[in-house]
Amino acid sequence: MTIKVIGFARSTNTLRVISCLNELGIPYQLEPPADFAAIKKDDYLAKKHPFGKIPVLYDGDYKISESRAICRYLVSKYQGKYNNTILIPHDVHEAGLVDQFIFYESFYYEPVVAKIIIHEIVLKTPESEIAKRALKDLDKVLGVYDKLLEGKEYLNGEFSLADLFHYPCAHFIYSSHADLWDKRPNVKKWLNRLRNRDAWKASLEKKNKL
Amino acid sequence: MTIKVIGFARSTNTLRVISCLNELGIPYQLEPPADFAAIKKDDYLAKKHPFGKIPVLYDGDYKISESRAICRYLVSKYQGKYNNTILIPHDVHEAGLVDQFIFYESFYYEPVVAKIIIHEIVLKTPESEIAKRALKDLDKVLGVYDKLLEGKEYLNGEFSLADLFHYPCAHFIYSSHADLWDKRPNVKKWLNRLRNRDAWKASLEKKNKL
Ligand SMILES: N[C@@H](CCC(=O)N[C@@H](CS)C(=O)NCC(=O)O)C(=O)O
Ligand SMILES: N[C@@H](CCC(=O)N[C@@H](CS)C(=O)NCC(=O)O)C(=O)O
Repeated sequence: MTIKVIGFARSTNTLRVISCLNELGIPYQLEPPADFAAIKKDDYLAKKHPFGKIPVLYDGDYKISESRAICRYLVSKYQGKYNNTILIPHDVHEAGLVDQFIFYESFYYEPVVAKIIIHEIVLKTPESEIAKRALKDLDKVLGVYDKLLEGKEYLNGEFSLADLFHYPCAHFIYSSHADLWDKRPNVKKWLNRLRNRDAWKASLEKKNKL
Repeated sequence: MTIKVIGFARSTNTLRVISCLNELGIPYQLEPPADFAAIKKDDYLAKKHPFGKIPVLYDGDYKISESRAICRYLVSKYQGKYNNTILIPHDVHEAGLVDQFIFYESFYYEPVVAKIIIHEIVLKTPESEIAKRALKDLDKVLGVYDKLLEGKEYLNGEFSLADLFHYPCAHFIYSSHADLWDKRPNVKKWLNRLRNRDAWKASLEKKNKL
């Protein structure tokens, strides 16, 4: 079975999936759409993602979309097959808490960081009210994370899918807002741990090659 | 072990969890905080939910927050224990697609419906630009759902956690915007199926009693 990822290696949501594939040691191919316009065409909406998004993953004929659902699927099917990395623990209570942190990421962290990326990098309007407000929100959110990470290397103690989910977005704005992360000692150490993982470095090489 | 839900029975996110508990036949107790101000106090933030939200669930000493993570945990631990209802199928490919629909709900449906609820019901500003824009967005989103539901009774064929997640929000705005849902034949039938489930009716009784 060939695993095929439809997406761009410079997209945060695609990097989330690539990073997960690399962590689990799963071989895959990346197939970028022609451009961002292509993912809004009728054919793409009907066959790939009904809301016109990347990434989409094919595992043979099986198709699944949404970066976080894709990663959970990869863990359920392939965790332990190619290496010993555990992204979701087997214990039901531990797995529940990984899920909890995944939804913190989805609802309180990603929407804020995505706004900063869109306004500063995509639209190039860093002075907009939305961008400035999002930076203030991120400052508060990272304050909460600093407490969550007190006495722990990772959100749930051991490294998990929840930590992995936070990094791709951070990568794009860290260099221009290092102070926001670095002034929080636990967040700073956490971010460095995530950035230095081999699987992430391999994902980044993919990005830089394209 | 006693299951305890911290939340208000009139809150959409709490109703999501109550509905799941009722579907799986799990006995539980509801413990409402004093009021909405109480969930922003230091003690609540430190011990219950770091972002100051309800619901939070206790299963004995084990604590977990975020409605969707809570429900996934309940399924992993209790599905099949009290009745035969399946909310997440055992097959890894089917479970992956339920997750995919859960993330459609989280990213494309809930944020739009939540905006309508906040502006029309909480703030009572139905004429605001945000409320009007959200209604237009909901119209588009339901158009996509109508296609997703073509030839199917539920999003993934059989009833699942993904369907259950969509209903609590819809309940609050359906009566004032019935046309939006009812003009889409598949959405209309789907909504009626969800509304008529015994577990939902039992959840609503809880809400109306308080
Ligand atoms: N919730 C989706 C979000 C996907 C998403 O927004 N991807 C971006 C690229 S990073 C995209 O497709 N943007 C095109 C658009 O929104 O029009 C996921 O996690 O996969
Ligand atoms: N993503 C959270 C959202 C929880 C949430 O927003 N709950 C609302 C009540 S329905 C709340 O706590 N509101 C208080 C606030 O946001 O300040 C979940 O799914 O549990």
